[in-house]
Amino acid sequence: MTFETVSLNRSHGGTQGVYKHNSRETGTEMTFSVYVPPLPGNAKLPVVWYLSGLTCTHANVTEKGEFRQACAELGLIFVAPDTSPRGEAVPGDPAGAYDFGLGAGFYVDATQAPFARNYRMWSYVTGELPELIAEHFPVDPKRQSILGHSMGGHGALTIALSHPGRYRAATAFSPIAAPSQVPWGIKALTGYLGDNKARWRKHDAVALIEDGARFSDLLVDCGDADPFLVEQLRPELLEAACAKAKIPHTLRLQTGYDHSYYFVSSFMADHLRWHAARLTA
Amino acid sequence: MTFETVSLNRSHGGTQGVYKHNSRETGTEMTFSVYVPPLPGNAKLPVVWYLSGLTCTHANVTEKGEFRQACAELGLIFVAPDTSPRGEAVPGDPAGAYDFGLGAGFYVDATQAPFARNYRMWSYVTGELPELIAEHFPVDPKRQSILGHSMGGHGALTIALSHPGRYRAATAFSPIAAPSQVPWGIKALTGYLGDNKARWRKHDAVALIEDGARFSDLLVDCGDADPFLVEQLRPELLEAACAKAKIPHTLRLQTGYDHSYYFVSSFMADHLRWHAARLTA
Repeated sequence: MTFETVSLNRSHGGTQGVYKHNSRETGTEMTFSVYVPPLPGNAKLPVVWYLSGLTCTHANVTEKGEFRQACAELGLIFVAPDTSPRGEAVPGDPAGAYDFGLGAGFYVDATQAPFARNYRMWSYVTGELPELIAEHFPVDPKRQSILGHSMGGHGALTIALSHPGRYRAATAFSPIAAPSQVPWGIKALTGYLGDNKARWRKHDAVALIEDGARFSDLLVDCGDADPFLVEQLRPELLEAACAKAKIPHTLRLQTGYDHSYYFVSSFMADHLRWHAARLTA
Repeated sequence: MTFETVSLNRSHGGTQGVYKHNSRETGTEMTFSVYVPPLPGNAKLPVVWYLSGLTCTHANVTEKGEFRQACAELGLIFVAPDTSPRGEAVPGDPAGAYDFGLGAGFYVDATQAPFARNYRMWSYVTGELPELIAEHFPVDPKRQSILGHSMGGHGALTIALSHPGRYRAATAFSPIAAPSQVPWGIKALTGYLGDNKARWRKHDAVALIEDGARFSDLLVDCGDADPFLVEQLRPELLEAACAKAKIPHTLRLQTGYDHSYYFVSSFMADHLRWHAARLTA
């Protein structure tokens, strides 16, 4: 697998890169960013996967996420994929809405026409891109962790719960915790996976836990001024599922914070310290 | 003077605001951002002015500057004005270039037609906006400092050198140190101030120092991979002028860094600690 360098910028002592490649999974050109902190010799470093939310590309967190200082201090490689396939040939939302199609891949492999060919973000994020990263960057595949924001928080939680032993830490900002039960998720899962709700369960963190998936411990931050909190995110359902399943969980409702990167960036370093503690244990 | 709130976001424990108002100086609507850190009671806080570079608005540093964590820790209010008047009635570069007119006010009061009516960024940044900020935010006007990037580094240095006693600290990232001697500066100063180079000297940090302006001490960071370093920035001229004038100065050439916010954000906290040390002394 090959890729092309779009840009390289020195930042916080390391290198922020943006790259693109032709993805076999999505059938499109995909762009992603990788931050490599200052390298101690030839060491292989832990890698943190960051999944972004609706409407975002790799660029939002790369520009606004304020993760580089912490990654430099903690010695973490930080990878940010795009949120969907893109391009003129890729079908989007029929009405042009922001919450389905382009920018809204929901981290599933679509089974429904016309989306099944390109919308394969699950396999892209868990299979193809990790292979590419392992081949070209100094990562230690045994030390991976994952986090995300909103739709990407959903992605991080479902991917972590579905791959026991692969990720040593999983955290989320404002995740769509129970997509089967909220408008954003119902629209996306219906569109990509069809009407049979049994097939949605492996793409719903709360349902996965109800069905037996487990994780060592979870950290979730939401803002109490987030306009999507009550209708779309529903962290209380995740909290209840974790409590019932006896999954250690830290769910924090942060006073005054909303859904934006002003919120994410405020607690990014905190999350990365959580990851580092588990990646270097 | 009144202003309108465009947005408010909780961030790093404080509030990032964006505001707009009708400026008497520029005759246009002007947008600016203000970060107010967590407030200890009714205290008045030091205020740091940040001036942005060519093509930028308040938004670039507000989104990419990574200043909020440090401002929250150090108790600094951070104000980021726009770089020029804007609007359909405002004349720009005749050829639509990025380095003159809209987004390129160069922090001068223009004397030349058709720019003299609107391009009054010197008076806006040193007079009108400070009045507005003092009226509406919990700032201590006796504790101000200033910094900037590129064209804004030029602005910060010339404004600090021209207002003895007003700013307790002045620092710059990649400043246009001697605009009278470089293409960006010659174009802008000719266009805004006319051909008489004697009138340029008060808008040229090196010329100001040669003409007797002094400052307690200066900090300047440039990247040695900055594509504009040799032709447009010329920090060596500032270093020579400071040395001759016996102005204490710290000029650092940072290895591998370019002209982008990936560079600025890497050293922003460092600059803010320099400011805080002088603002709280």
